[in-house]
Amino acid sequence: MLSVAEYLDLVLDSVSELPPMELPISDANGCVLAQDIYARWPLPSFDNSSMDGYAVIASDLVGASEDAPLTLPVIDDIPAGFKSLETLRSGQAIRIMTGAPMPAGADSVIPVESTDGGSEVVQIRASIELGSCIRHEGEDVQSGDLVLTKGTFIGPRQIALIAAVGHGVISVIPKPRVAVVATGSELVEPGTELKFGLISDSNSFLITAIANDSGAVAYRLPPAQDDEDTLIEILQDQVHRADLIITTGGVSMGAYDPVKSAFLKLGTAHFHKVAMQPGMPQGFGSVGDPAIPIITLPGNPVSAYVSFEVFIRPAIRKMRGLKQLQRPQWPAVVKGQLRSPVNKVQFARGRFIAEGQVELVGAGQGSHVLGGLAQADALIVIPVGVDSIASGEQVQVIDVRGDLT
Amino acid sequence: MLSVAEYLDLVLDSVSELPPMELPISDANGCVLAQDIYARWPLPSFDNSSMDGYAVIASDLVGASEDAPLTLPVIDDIPAGFKSLETLRSGQAIRIMTGAPMPAGADSVIPVESTDGGSEVVQIRASIELGSCIRHEGEDVQSGDLVLTKGTFIGPRQIALIAAVGHGVISVIPKPRVAVVATGSELVEPGTELKFGLISDSNSFLITAIANDSGAVAYRLPPAQDDEDTLIEILQDQVHRADLIITTGGVSMGAYDPVKSAFLKLGTAHFHKVAMQPGMPQGFGSVGDPAIPIITLPGNPVSAYVSFEVFIRPAIRKMRGLKQLQRPQWPAVVKGQLRSPVNKVQFARGRFIAEGQVELVGAGQGSHVLGGLAQADALIVIPVGVDSIASGEQVQVIDVRGDLT
Repeated sequence: MLSVAEYLDLVLDSVSELPPMELPISDANGCVLAQDIYARWPLPSFDNSSMDGYAVIASDLVGASEDAPLTLPVIDDIPAGFKSLETLRSGQAIRIMTGAPMPAGADSVIPVESTDGGSEVVQIRASIELGSCIRHEGEDVQSGDLVLTKGTFIGPRQIALIAAVGHGVISVIPKPRVAVVATGSELVEPGTELKFGLISDSNSFLITAIANDSGAVAYRLPPAQDDEDTLIEILQDQVHRADLIITTGGVSMGAYDPVKSAFLKLGTAHFHKVAMQPGMPQGFGSVGDPAIPIITLPGNPVSAYVSFEVFIRPAIRKMRGLKQLQRPQWPAVVKGQLRSPVNKVQFARGRFIAEGQVELVGAGQGSHVLGGLAQADALIVIPVGVDSIASGEQVQVIDVRGDLT
Repeated sequence: MLSVAEYLDLVLDSVSELPPMELPISDANGCVLAQDIYARWPLPSFDNSSMDGYAVIASDLVGASEDAPLTLPVIDDIPAGFKSLETLRSGQAIRIMTGAPMPAGADSVIPVESTDGGSEVVQIRASIELGSCIRHEGEDVQSGDLVLTKGTFIGPRQIALIAAVGHGVISVIPKPRVAVVATGSELVEPGTELKFGLISDSNSFLITAIANDSGAVAYRLPPAQDDEDTLIEILQDQVHRADLIITTGGVSMGAYDPVKSAFLKLGTAHFHKVAMQPGMPQGFGSVGDPAIPIITLPGNPVSAYVSFEVFIRPAIRKMRGLKQLQRPQWPAVVKGQLRSPVNKVQFARGRFIAEGQVELVGAGQGSHVLGGLAQADALIVIPVGVDSIASGEQVQVIDVRGDLT
């Protein structure tokens, strides 16, 4: 029996960061940058007005006030996107919009709120400091600056900076394409009537949704019969479409193991017992040529879910080029008592009742208990060597709340 | 000037929870449930084996051990998905796979690991307790149980439960479709050469990406010239495609306000100064018939970003049917000192240096400073009434780290 850490190392060694590809920045949200980003020009690219107002020479406005307004002729009018051809001289004003380039000769901008907003002549009711309301070329970013380095996670704010410094297409580590297939002759599509002995496929929906949530582009295949030829056909079809194949079911100790035999015919497969509960029977390997990784999850839904969190989320994050592979664990006080197998890590299902406080959920902690799983938003991690948790004890939890956005 | 809370109330009043629609469960991840979900059958749907092994009568195995194995004839073999037609009698065994229905007459399952795995006869090397390794019909969920209530957030674990209790199509509040358009005659597509006075559009990429991250289905339109007719055409085109339109730019105090005039021609528009920094000039309204909401963000990228977090994320969450509209704020100790306008809420950009510790980022806190924004992963909230923060003080922060998955 392998420890959780030993088996995780094996799984992580079986996958690689995906090779980079070029993507338009509008498709790069959530990817990892595969190149350094240098500024093609400074930000701002030119001295410009930070306010709607009038470009002036500050010394002209000395003494202007509400009671003693100054009247200047407005010799031009600069919308954003345009450059005045005029050169401002003492005793003149040029109307200017936010973001518009400063005209030659002007040294300051008086905001429209301190004027009468005139278009032929303007009445100015305040003086200003030299340089007011000007954003200077390069004060944010200099031309040629390294603004983001290879390996950076690209979110909305990073995309904005990449766009602003002049890049419309960038090299990124793409999101892994993940094919998900549940195996089992007992599985039918949800919504159909159940004949006796059959069950609705739920695992493939669970794993597809959570793989998408963890940053993959995952898609669900219909449930596969427990039949070696069928499985070989499905796997061969996916080898050139997916970067990772995930199966559920069919890897326990029984007599019917078409999953195992199909994998072994198409590539390599390693099946292990892992010292955890739920989720003891695990498998991984590779299929096809060029080989792509495959990970086999147990068929019990709670086992499949926990195994995804413990092994596949980190694997997908490695494929995405992320450095931090594990979800953080936090201390919390538990309400409710629980026994745990002393030689295994238990991942018990809990629910936050306050920040830093969790209670156990569900009628039981069996690996088939979907009702409790749907109520859970925390995995309580009970390490090897601990055989029980009393109410009020401090435990480590993995926060699996779905919607913190 | 409105307070942040007053203006947020106005914005939230201008949007509504979207009407429900039917979706296949594979498309429902991240939506909110618009119906109660009742179990169409119990879970498990029938008594079944929790292990690969042999269905037996427990009393037959009394005394069986490694040293004194018991040999029984195997009268049938049940894969998952099949039901044995045999009735087990004392002195017999039936091979059974995990998840397969218990055969009539059997009261327990002995795991294959405690046997020789035989197919004609089986040697059993242990005794078991009555009822071992059976998952009983309905022990997780009873037929007719209310398993999830209207208003529940649907994540992977909820989808799994919905599938398992027999629903393939469900009623949900869909994700809002959000059209994003940056306005400004100075804007060009990133990647093209810049002529003097022009700048790369970055706001629409920023807002589209963050709207998607906040649970919308957002799409970006090309930048719009500062021209009333152009804007009216764009808005009219989006009225029947989008549930919300977001614009950036064009709403300050200047002479060129085609955004304001276009909105007023097509519907209602309300422009306010809000006591916050950055992000003072804000606007919202509705356009078209039936009217859809529109929100106008300031054109400075940092202002646009902060305004999205403060006003639009909660609005999108309300449209999605979520109850918790605001991101949580956490206490943190700040490194670096900062002045703040005493009559405004300041949202300063910070970066986590440890859990509960942030430092200020960027060369400055100006509303055009994209370089600093891309380095930030926390918004430091400095309330009205506070004019400075000293290094080492405790502040409230909004965690905007993009990738905690």
